[in-house]
Amino acid sequence: MSNPQSKVDVLIIGAGPAGVMCANGLARAGVNVRIIDKRPAKVAAGQADGIQPRTIEVLQSYGLADALLSQAAQMHMAAFYNPSPTGGIECTGRAADVNAPTARYPFEATLHQGEIENIFLNSMRKEGVEVERPMIPTSLELSTDQTELEDPQAYPVKVVLKRLDVEGEANNTEVVHAKFVLGADGAHSWVRKTMGVTMDGEQTDYIWGVIDMVPSPETDFPDVRNRCAIHSENGSCMIIPREGDKIRLYIQLTNADVVDPATGRVDMNKFGPDKLLEVAKKSFQPFIMSTTPDKIDWWTLYIIGQRVASKYSIHERVFIAGDACHTHSPKAGQGMNASMNDTHNLIWKLTYVLRGWADPSLLKTYEFERRKYAQDLIAFDKEFSALFSGKPKSEGYADGVSHQQFLQAFQTHGGFTSGINVHYVPSAITSAVYQSAASKLTIGQRLLPQTILRAADRRPVEVQDLCPADTRFKVLVFTGDMQDSQQHARVETFAAELSREDGFLNTNVIAQAERAYDVMSILKGKKEEISYRDVPEILRPHWSKVLLDDVDQTGTKGGKMYETYGVGPEGAVVIVRPDGYVGMVCPLDQVKSLDNYFAGFMKSP
Amino acid sequence: MSNPQSKVDVLIIGAGPAGVMCANGLARAGVNVRIIDKRPAKVAAGQADGIQPRTIEVLQSYGLADALLSQAAQMHMAAFYNPSPTGGIECTGRAADVNAPTARYPFEATLHQGEIENIFLNSMRKEGVEVERPMIPTSLELSTDQTELEDPQAYPVKVVLKRLDVEGEANNTEVVHAKFVLGADGAHSWVRKTMGVTMDGEQTDYIWGVIDMVPSPETDFPDVRNRCAIHSENGSCMIIPREGDKIRLYIQLTNADVVDPATGRVDMNKFGPDKLLEVAKKSFQPFIMSTTPDKIDWWTLYIIGQRVASKYSIHERVFIAGDACHTHSPKAGQGMNASMNDTHNLIWKLTYVLRGWADPSLLKTYEFERRKYAQDLIAFDKEFSALFSGKPKSEGYADGVSHQQFLQAFQTHGGFTSGINVHYVPSAITSAVYQSAASKLTIGQRLLPQTILRAADRRPVEVQDLCPADTRFKVLVFTGDMQDSQQHARVETFAAELSREDGFLNTNVIAQAERAYDVMSILKGKKEEISYRDVPEILRPHWSKVLLDDVDQTGTKGGKMYETYGVGPEGAVVIVRPDGYVGMVCPLDQVKSLDNYFAGFMKSP
Repeated sequence: MSNPQSKVDVLIIGAGPAGVMCANGLARAGVNVRIIDKRPAKVAAGQADGIQPRTIEVLQSYGLADALLSQAAQMHMAAFYNPSPTGGIECTGRAADVNAPTARYPFEATLHQGEIENIFLNSMRKEGVEVERPMIPTSLELSTDQTELEDPQAYPVKVVLKRLDVEGEANNTEVVHAKFVLGADGAHSWVRKTMGVTMDGEQTDYIWGVIDMVPSPETDFPDVRNRCAIHSENGSCMIIPREGDKIRLYIQLTNADVVDPATGRVDMNKFGPDKLLEVAKKSFQPFIMSTTPDKIDWWTLYIIGQRVASKYSIHERVFIAGDACHTHSPKAGQGMNASMNDTHNLIWKLTYVLRGWADPSLLKTYEFERRKYAQDLIAFDKEFSALFSGKPKSEGYADGVSHQQFLQAFQTHGGFTSGINVHYVPSAITSAVYQSAASKLTIGQRLLPQTILRAADRRPVEVQDLCPADTRFKVLVFTGDMQDSQQHARVETFAAELSREDGFLNTNVIAQAERAYDVMSILKGKKEEISYRDVPEILRPHWSKVLLDDVDQTGTKGGKMYETYGVGPEGAVVIVRPDGYVGMVCPLDQVKSLDNYFAGFMKSP
Repeated sequence: MSNPQSKVDVLIIGAGPAGVMCANGLARAGVNVRIIDKRPAKVAAGQADGIQPRTIEVLQSYGLADALLSQAAQMHMAAFYNPSPTGGIECTGRAADVNAPTARYPFEATLHQGEIENIFLNSMRKEGVEVERPMIPTSLELSTDQTELEDPQAYPVKVVLKRLDVEGEANNTEVVHAKFVLGADGAHSWVRKTMGVTMDGEQTDYIWGVIDMVPSPETDFPDVRNRCAIHSENGSCMIIPREGDKIRLYIQLTNADVVDPATGRVDMNKFGPDKLLEVAKKSFQPFIMSTTPDKIDWWTLYIIGQRVASKYSIHERVFIAGDACHTHSPKAGQGMNASMNDTHNLIWKLTYVLRGWADPSLLKTYEFERRKYAQDLIAFDKEFSALFSGKPKSEGYADGVSHQQFLQAFQTHGGFTSGINVHYVPSAITSAVYQSAASKLTIGQRLLPQTILRAADRRPVEVQDLCPADTRFKVLVFTGDMQDSQQHARVETFAAELSREDGFLNTNVIAQAERAYDVMSILKGKKEEISYRDVPEILRPHWSKVLLDDVDQTGTKGGKMYETYGVGPEGAVVIVRPDGYVGMVCPLDQVKSLDNYFAGFMKSP
């Protein structure tokens, strides 16, 4: 008797942050997707917990930020503690936790990983997709037939799946033929190993412990609700405030603390949260940091590895993402963010290829963009971990890490740790030729948040909310002042060019224009004078698509978009990719360049 | 066979905005409540649709503003049209729709009444309360026994209820004995008539028509998404933009338009939306305003009455609220707001009396506060309706209403129409003696919205969100700068006084302090320097209850609370009533005055 066979467009292995982000995004885009996980239930405690400002923007682009923010704690302030001349530690300074002036959400959010995954599980459930668990892949074969590999509608990946909660191969085994497979199966990725992808980099000597707990009432440490970086003579600690009254403690350990001298290995069974807390208590002196066993949620030990996968895909048919691609220190709160942003980058590309809209070569940009990011992340992590794990500077140890040194590194890397400065360099989907047309809006970075008025009802809205992750390219047309006759003529010419039958709006993905492109116009003018009907009809597919760069009725919001983006009175076009990154910018007389940009990866009928 | 008998603490008759507000508020407070309505289903279209800025704040205080704002349209701009010298109308100006600088939500929201009611129905459902319908009262008797009337735990109101969807008196009739009854049964209130309460005031000559519709594509009127006041030679019109692409048109009619000459009465059967639209089309010339029959949602005609009920309760046992108490023009969008704010005022008072916490005399303040408001509303409506229904000023009609005149009235009354300036004058629950201790926070008005940081995590929060409608009095202690030794001593003395065994926190409603009082402290200081532990323990029942008046990390929010409230460095105490209105203010050395304030209506054990 042969096992059941089935077909699926995308099979996702692993339902951690990278996997559920991908499954939800694909499901919402109408892609036929399945997701499996070896765990019988979602994470109940512990694991990752930090969400960067940029990742909150990404969640918002899927309509999921409210679900996060209604539960999460927020870190606005970082406090720094260093050895006091009188013994123990003292607060040597406090500073903004996020150093990224353009962040829409100027704080980090923290919430238990299981709850974050739940936000995606609830969302994908509305699309009829559930995680199948406990289930593992037992074999994965990629066809070697070149024709099949090049045909996006073929099923070149054969995966055997096994249910772990059912006995007998006849009952628990299924053969799946997939167009694409994503391995989002963690640091020890089975998919990565099966595909023979190596990890570049190495382990470090840093050993850390983690405890999630609610401090007891006698705790008198004053910064228990701020992110704290504590350098003591006894070792380093970090506090991450969490949802409710919970906090997370990261505690630096020495080999003597954790390595069993008999075996030379870390023995988790011989260690426990009480011992971890003992180490922490010494670092917190003269402050009291205490809890009781019933208030400890989770704990673990880890040794930092700093490695990046040598490649992110095999023939753009089997991909890996998240921890399967990169491992590093958890202390800058990057892990879950890097993972979710990996698949956020991949979702729209897979969707376009599966819909037959884009050439499969589009998928090459996934590794191109995300592997470079991971390398930057490891470089950052090496510097930051060394500083954080280093001994504090003192009278007896002049080579130690000073408060100033640490604070400076903390602030310098704000753009990176916040996720705000992620920058995709030129490729088929990122064209930086006309950067000067919007000089302050960096092509390859995410669209800068900005409040703008809707022209018809003068309602202030956030431009990022007009550019959701709905798989469409956003075509933002900055018309300038339509009451200026020269500019008016320029816009009329632009609109006529845009309407050409052989222009991108009409040639690519025939009859799908409104599914692929969302056209908006942004007027410059006074809210008391303009009308949304001032722009040519092709630039106002609906009244809500005409925007106005003017200050709102309260005088506190809006009116700074042209200035912030560096767009002059002659206008410009800004193309925002489906993932919210600026793909291209050009002057109004360059419709031909727009055509060429889209022709670079979109298919003609 | 006798009919079933039952008991209930509060019986609400009528499930319109006043009724559902009350039922939801009482249910959330844990009060035993029933609500009935004669309609078999909730309103499907039409009726009221405008929510004022203040009412949005009130919805937010029940956690319901998001549900409104996710569906509603917003009016930010008002446009004014007047006769053009070349015939037809022209835009003579545009201005902010809301003229209330302190409004937290600086716009009006519009949404179909049925959806607004639904927000409350969904909320009260979570408390296990559903509207019983279709059901009517057939008799209502109030006991004449004085002892019974004075005992808040007695059931002096006997109401016979009849289900309209069940045949036979034996099956459809029930006798209910209620502690309190609320008649929220509309302009033709059965409860009001049964109790013999008269309406003071009169009908007007103004006849208006209303249409809810989606304009067709050929409509070229540029302000279709703004509130528009149109004065034409053909009569006046108003546009209210609504959710989605819908708009509401108010159309002034003449007797000739609608009165049947044979009977001298308005005959709804002989009139229709097509005729209404015909009148409107003439007023909109030279602009096109059109629709098709399938795009008309609802329509009606009405004659404005301007009347207030002579009293709002009988022995504070049977109350009336909403349209049962006041009828007026709908054009300033006041109706639903006045109704919901009537019962918002009543909810906590009924709750306190039913819990045995307050003397029944507290209930007298309902009529005292809300009837005065209704009288102000009628006075405003007379002036505004006359201006709005008046003929426009023109060369041939110098006595007409000019654009300037109308605009000025529109802006002058902004505080009133927004609901922001509602002011309850001194009574048992509003003590204005120490107004100077917070000189810019008007006692008797709602607590001014203000962004403040939480001291422990420096998270910016809105102070109104710290004062939800949870039936508790909020005790806001402005401590000043705790690093100043003189002020530190003053606060320590205040804390000691507040802890006295015979102080209000300990004497009133014994063992219920945390259910009745929510104590918070507001520090003045720098976020880099202070700790939430700087205040005495009684002023920090939880870390989240300590606030800091400083600017946030982005430098854009917070840091203006002392200044905005007019509180000096010596500090102050602000008492916020459960409905969000400022009940009292006093200096820190006046704990005795606080005791006296609460002793004025709270019971001692």
